[in-house]
Formats: sequence, C-alpha cells, structure tokens
Amino acid sequence: MNAMGTPTNAGAGWRHKHLLDVDVLTYDEIQIVMRTTDAMKEILDRPITKVPALRGTNVTILFYEASTRTRVSFEVAAKNLSADVVNIAASSSSVTKGESLVDTIRTIEALGADMIVMRHATSGAAYLAAEVFSGSILNGGDGRHAHPSQALLDLYTMRAHLGDMRGRKVVILGDVLHSRVARSNVWSLTAAGADLWICGPSTILRGFDAWAARWAGGGVPGHAGFTVTSDVNAALRDADVVMALRLQRERMDAGLLPSLREYSARFGLNRERLAAAKPTALVMHPGPMNEGVEIAPDVAVLDRSVITQQVTNGVAVRMALLYLLAGGHPEAVTNA
Amino acid sequence: MNAMGTPTNAGAGWRHKHLLDVDVLTYDEIQIVMRTTDAMKEILDRPITKVPALRGTNVTILFYEASTRTRVSFEVAAKNLSADVVNIAASSSSVTKGESLVDTIRTIEALGADMIVMRHATSGAAYLAAEVFSGSILNGGDGRHAHPSQALLDLYTMRAHLGDMRGRKVVILGDVLHSRVARSNVWSLTAAGADLWICGPSTILRGFDAWAARWAGGGVPGHAGFTVTSDVNAALRDADVVMALRLQRERMDAGLLPSLREYSARFGLNRERLAAAKPTALVMHPGPMNEGVEIAPDVAVLDRSVITQQVTNGVAVRMALLYLLAGGHPEAVTNA
Amino acid sequence: MNAMGTPTNAGAGWRHKHLLDVDVLTYDEIQIVMRTTDAMKEILDRPITKVPALRGTNVTILFYEASTRTRVSFEVAAKNLSADVVNIAASSSSVTKGESLVDTIRTIEALGADMIVMRHATSGAAYLAAEVFSGSILNGGDGRHAHPSQALLDLYTMRAHLGDMRGRKVVILGDVLHSRVARSNVWSLTAAGADLWICGPSTILRGFDAWAARWAGGGVPGHAGFTVTSDVNAALRDADVVMALRLQRERMDAGLLPSLREYSARFGLNRERLAAAKPTALVMHPGPMNEGVEIAPDVAVLDRSVITQQVTNGVAVRMALLYLLAGGHPEAVTNA
Repeated sequence: MNAMGTPTNAGAGWRHKHLLDVDVLTYDEIQIVMRTTDAMKEILDRPITKVPALRGTNVTILFYEASTRTRVSFEVAAKNLSADVVNIAASSSSVTKGESLVDTIRTIEALGADMIVMRHATSGAAYLAAEVFSGSILNGGDGRHAHPSQALLDLYTMRAHLGDMRGRKVVILGDVLHSRVARSNVWSLTAAGADLWICGPSTILRGFDAWAARWAGGGVPGHAGFTVTSDVNAALRDADVVMALRLQRERMDAGLLPSLREYSARFGLNRERLAAAKPTALVMHPGPMNEGVEIAPDVAVLDRSVITQQVTNGVAVRMALLYLLAGGHPEAVTNA
Repeated sequence: MNAMGTPTNAGAGWRHKHLLDVDVLTYDEIQIVMRTTDAMKEILDRPITKVPALRGTNVTILFYEASTRTRVSFEVAAKNLSADVVNIAASSSSVTKGESLVDTIRTIEALGADMIVMRHATSGAAYLAAEVFSGSILNGGDGRHAHPSQALLDLYTMRAHLGDMRGRKVVILGDVLHSRVARSNVWSLTAAGADLWICGPSTILRGFDAWAARWAGGGVPGHAGFTVTSDVNAALRDADVVMALRLQRERMDAGLLPSLREYSARFGLNRERLAAAKPTALVMHPGPMNEGVEIAPDVAVLDRSVITQQVTNGVAVRMALLYLLAGGHPEAVTNA
Repeated sequence: MNAMGTPTNAGAGWRHKHLLDVDVLTYDEIQIVMRTTDAMKEILDRPITKVPALRGTNVTILFYEASTRTRVSFEVAAKNLSADVVNIAASSSSVTKGESLVDTIRTIEALGADMIVMRHATSGAAYLAAEVFSGSILNGGDGRHAHPSQALLDLYTMRAHLGDMRGRKVVILGDVLHSRVARSNVWSLTAAGADLWICGPSTILRGFDAWAARWAGGGVPGHAGFTVTSDVNAALRDADVVMALRLQRERMDAGLLPSLREYSARFGLNRERLAAAKPTALVMHPGPMNEGVEIAPDVAVLDRSVITQQVTNGVAVRMALLYLLAGGHPEAVTNA
C-alpha cells in the first residue's frame, strides 16, 4: 500500500496505451480497473479529493458532441489527479473551418497534450485519432459504436452491490440500436460472466440478434448467456439489474418507432414491469434521462436506483483509467 | 485578526447554507457580508490575489443564460480562494437533450460539486435546485426574480463612498419590470435604511407600486421610504445615488415602450437630468451598458461614476459569499 | 543563467507593454523574443513543463472568432507559466447583448485581468483595447491586419532550421489579401533581412505591390528584398522556405477567385511546384489546412514540412511573450 491507498501492484499487467473500447480488455485487465477504481473511491471520500498523480500532465478534452456528465466527469477526474485540463468544444474550434480530424489531433499533440479524451459523432473516430497521436486516446463515445468508460462504471456499480457478476441476470432495455452504451456493455458484461439480456422493439434490435446468435454458436467459456428479445416480461423476470437506455431522439431515424407514447407504453420502465424483476434488482440509467419516456419518475428515485451512484463512480473509474493509461506505476501516487 | 486580515469572528452569526435572494438576510447578516468583503478587498490589493481558503472545494458554475461579468466574476472569485472551478454553459450541456433541472443538479452533485453558482431564465429555478442539492446554491440570477450578489455588491459600493446608508436617497431608474437587479436591490437597500426611489415608464412599474403601497401601509422600522414614480425629475432631485438599469431588450414584451429613442429621451440618464441630483451623487449601472440608450456615454465616464468599481467589488463580494457559505471559519483562512 | 535556463539579461532592452503587431519591434527586440523562446523550449522539453513565473497573474483570453490553435496555444502557454486563465468566447458573452468593446475591456480589467489575449474580426480592435486597458494586450489576430505571435513563431521556426535569415528566400504563397499572417510576416521577415516573396493571384495582391514598391524606392538597410508576383514558378525557384496560406473561404469576397479547383490548380503547393525550390526548402503553413486546396496532403507530411513544429514553437513563443510583457525580470523565474 502507498499513501493513496492503492496496492502498489495495481497496475501490474496493464498493457494498453489507449482506451478505445472494452472489447480488447481481458477479464484480468477489467479486474485491474476495478481495483484501481476502489483506490480512487477512497480518494473521493477524503475532505480534499486531490492527489498529485498526474501533475504536469496535459489532458485535452476534445468533444464534437454536446455533453455534461461525460465531459465534466473526465474534467473532474483529471483535476483530482492534478492534471492540467484543456477543453475544446467543436462548435468553437477549427473544426468549423474544415480541418481534418487527423490534422486536429496532430495539432493538439503539438500544443502539448499528453492524453486526449475525445467524443465524436462518427463511429471509429477515436481509432483514427489513436493511429496518429503519440500519447493516449480515451474514447468518450464514438457514434453508435463504443463508450468504454461508461461500460466500466456500469460494471463497477453493479459489482459494488452484487459482487461477482457471474450468472447475474442483467437486462439492457431500450433503444440499443443507437446506443454506444449498449454495445460497450455487451463486451464488459459478457466478459464478467453475466447473463445478459438485450430488450427493445424488434425494429431496433437489428445487429444484436445476429451478434447473440454468433455468441451462442461459438460460445465464450465462462459466459453465462446473451439473449436478445422483444418480450419485456421475459427479459425482466428475476433480473438482478435493469438498465434503461435513453431514447436517443436526436439520433433516431424516422420510422423505427411509432411514437414516444407507444414506446413508453410498451417498453418504458415502470413499477409494474419492474415487479417482475428480483425485489432487490438494481435500477440503472446512463443519463440524461427522459423521465416519463424510457423510465418513470417514481422508478428513477427508488432506493435501489443507483443512477446517481453511476455518476459518482464514473469520476472514480475515469481517474483509474487516466492513471493506468498514464503509466501504471501506482507507487508514484502519493499525497506528498 | 488572522493572516488574511479578517477579524476572526467575521463569520459568526452567519446561518445560511444557500444564497437565493437578499430578502432573508437580516441587517446584521448584511453587515457580516460587508465586513468579510472588506477582508477580501485587501486580498485583491495584494500582488498575488490568491488564498487557500477553498482549496479542494469544487465550485460548479452552471449558466443557462449568456453572461460575461457575473460568470467570470464568480470564476475569478472562486479561483482567488483556490477552489476548483467547473464551467457548464447551457448551450453545450445535457440541457439541450431535455434533462430536467432536478436531474441536472443531482448529476452535478454526484460529479463532486460542493457549491453551484447558477443562472437560469426561470424565476425560482435556484430555489428548486436548493431543494435537491446537498451543498450550497448561489443564485447568479433567476429570471426576473433575484440577483442577490449584484444587490450586495451595489450596497458595498455605495457604502464605500457614503458610509451608513440610512436616509440616503437612492434612485433606481429604468426597466425595473424585467430587472432582477431592481427586485434584489429593493430588499437590501430598504434593509440598509435607504430612502429608495423606483423610477421608470408607468407601463413598467407594475408590481412595484403595489409593493411600495404595502410597505407604506405596514412599514418596517428604520426604513426611510420606498417611492415609485414616473416623474424622473422628482426622483433625481437631491439624490445621493442614481442607478441606471440596462434596457432588457432581449426580455422585453412588445408594446411596453414606444421606442428606444423615446425611452432614451424621457428616461435616459444624461448630464441635464443628473444635474438635479446632489453634485456628488454616485452614478451606477449593473452592466452591460447600452450607452446612448439608458445612459449617456459622457455620464458613464464621470469621476463620480462608480461602474467599474462595481465590477471589482463584485469579485470581492462573491469571494465573501463563497467563503461564508463554505463554512464561515475565518480563522482557517491563511496564506500558508 | 538562472534555474529556468534563461540568461538573466534576456529581457534587458524590452520596452513594450503591449504586443499589437511586429512592426514596432526592432531587430534587437526580435532577438530578445527569440532568445527567451529558446529558454521556454527548454522548459517544454522537461517532464513537467510548469514554472511559477506568472503565478498570481490573471490572463484573460477574449476571442471574438472561433479558434483552436491560437486560443489553446495561449492557454497552455499561460498555464505553463502558472498564470490563472479565464476564457471568454464571444458567443457566450455580453458581446451578444450589445456592449461596446471599450466597456468590455474596462469590465475585464475591473474583474482582475492583468493581461488580455484578444482576437477580433475588426482590424485595429486590439489597438483600441490597448488605449483603455491598464495591463498588457496581446493581439491574437485582428481582422486582416495583424497576427504578431504567429509571425514570431514562424520566424523562430525558420531560424531553428536555417539560422541567420539574412538573404534567405522566403515565399508566402496564397490568399495574402485576407491574411493577417501574411501582413505580420512581412514586417518580421524583412526586419530579419530575408529575401521576401509574396505570391498569389493578381486579384488578391492588392496593397502588397504598392507596399513592395515603397520598400524598393526607400529601402531599409540590410533588407534583402521584397517582391510581389503572380508567377508561382519564379517565386518558388531556389526558395529556402515556402509558406502556404490557408484559403480564407470564410472571409473571401465574391469574385476574387474563379473557383477552389482553379486556385488549387494554379497556386496550390504540390510536389511538382515544390521541386523548383531548394531540395531542403522548409514547408510551412499557419493552419488549419484545407488539404487538397492550398496544399497537397503529400506535401504537408514531407520530412521538411515543419507545420507541427510551428504549433509547438507557438506555445514557446507565447510563453516568451507573456513573460516579457509581464515584466521582463528573468531572474525571477525559478522552479522553486
């Protein structure tokens, strides 16, 4: 142990330079993130939540899409580690002048960035950035593709309440088609051995059923299951975790859903539906919520709703990720 | 006295968790703010204007309306006290995704905010936020309702020149109907015992005359007066302070004023009108000014115009408010 | 030498309060900037790029136009010197409420700014600001007029590769009419004794030919030359440096250029054209690039392209400028 409360071998075994998605993380690497997050949670419980771990490190937060929670979460996480933070929002940047993404990344590197946290509307944008940037890229969401830090904070939150996730029934409910949160969660939850259920209108399950079929055909040792269904009652029955997804109205193509009202009536997470799950089932949502659409207001505030815990754990997970990507030498983290 | 120059009992008697409006501040509490502001002014006069009072405190500035001076004033104030500052502007936030204000506040709390400085177009928004936030809310302006830090910096500026305000004639001139500055100043100036005059076109005095009538009927001991009039000459006669308000064109409903030109001709603060006031009368304006509309350019730059002093005092008052709300232990404030 | 690696007389001879353009800098003063930049480059090569030189100094970055590289470059430069940085973007500021520039500057001063870095669409805006601000104004670009820190980083980058610039042939190629970069570079490059060639379509050379004619008529001792031409082959022949300018589509008046395609065909910097220059000729661009328009993608990534070096040197030059304007006492700069 050191002054931060981290076991000094926390980062041993960490071999990644970037965090682009969770699909390349082994079970052991996910454990490293979880343990490092435990140490960061301890820091967040202190009166002064600042440690000098990343002093002198320039973290540039480059967001091409509006965001409060993810952007601020990374900013607070980086500042808690004493990094210098530069915010660049697309609307006020050279992006509007037609500069290519590659040139923008090269420029940000030349300006001194050691790490870039990046959100972009195009799937794969973070991968392109990682090819040209000599530091670390943290994918803060790319199109419909991936949102790895969200998947890791979700897993951390579940484990904090349920412990080992092997065999635990986790339901992701809603607009999975447009959700990078859903895609990244598939990887981390199956890696953790959960019994994963994806549920939503049949028109927006495209891709997931083929994915699940491949999974069932090949099979990954230790994975309990991966089921895709439009039957919300079957999905929720005896669930340990129910995660409602935001209805991504701003990304929705016309014609996939008849109306918000009908979506809410058939798939909205309300008390009646939740009664099918275990009495202690966790209620989760990545935010921001459209209350009354994909989740009922009285469900969002249940004692077993851990939605705000997800937000706080997000800061701790992002501290862990920045810290591990910056070098993984926990013994260097002190309060001195 | 301690190293900051604050009498160590400056915060004694302070009992507020939030600053939502000045109407709940007693005369003694206003004195505490004024004395703490004196100490902060001393800090602003030093070569290095930074003290560690709020080290480790996360101050989130959540503004749903455009602002330079209030936003930057709070940011500089918080940084002078060594707080960590996070800026969230509505246009780049989850707000555009339809999240409720309550969820936004809960999320910001979960992200680690200890204090939220907030501006919102809806009257009462800060009160709603205070109901769900476990830290301190500082109202940086809510609709037409209140702007308490502005009222306190105005009072501080007047006292710096005039001393005790009891019996001093203070005129607030202009678009009081749309002005949260006017509403908050009514409370603090009458509490300080000033002889308050509200002057503007009769169409935009709605509410204030009823307010003044109630006041006259009941009466508050020690209050010298509260007069509402459209007679600009009567209002300015022998005034000690003339505060011109910004013509809130962006909030103005159609039909209340015939034209900018006519407004300026009848109510604009120019040298001729000002001649009716005392020769030493202070000229004030909360900014930003529409010069040539509500105030003549040559009046804005008179020696007795204290408009830029208001801005500087605003930083000091906001340092005092952040400091008092954060705990009010002046003896903890040192330069060490 | 002191702990920063600066000769302690680096700032001796520096007599400027503001940096509005390079036209007022003597040859000796430019040398001071170059030497101070050398010291800052050393700091940028350290593991932790932070020195306490401007601790307690408030640097406000006031940008009325979108920018990534210049805005972030000044922000990183100021933070590397431990200054407190406040960002104000026009779109979210009082500017949208109609406040005058003079009032905005006075307000920013009253809020505590010691230095203002400013970009504005109007030529001369920084000069107006300098008349009312008691601290230092750094012009980050005013209309088509000047962009002095860009010219100094360009010169620094050339000297790093070529040493003494006297007699070196430097070509500025492109939309010089709309380019503040070109205008400022004319001053610094002729002051450094370069053989300067300005090349572009004849319709956009207006003003530069008259400027060059005056130069040729009068002559400045030690200046090698100043040629304005539309003949791109003559311009590039045996050049030591070729700087392609961004085609300022957002500022271009209708009718000056037939089409982007024709511009690119006649004046775009491609491998064929570049073959006329010296084999070691540096390729430069102030960014952001429109690749495929004013510069071919395969030219931008040549080994002798120093475009990203320009960006890094920009941070060092701006550290030097902030430092010199803040007082020029190099002996005060330490790591303690």
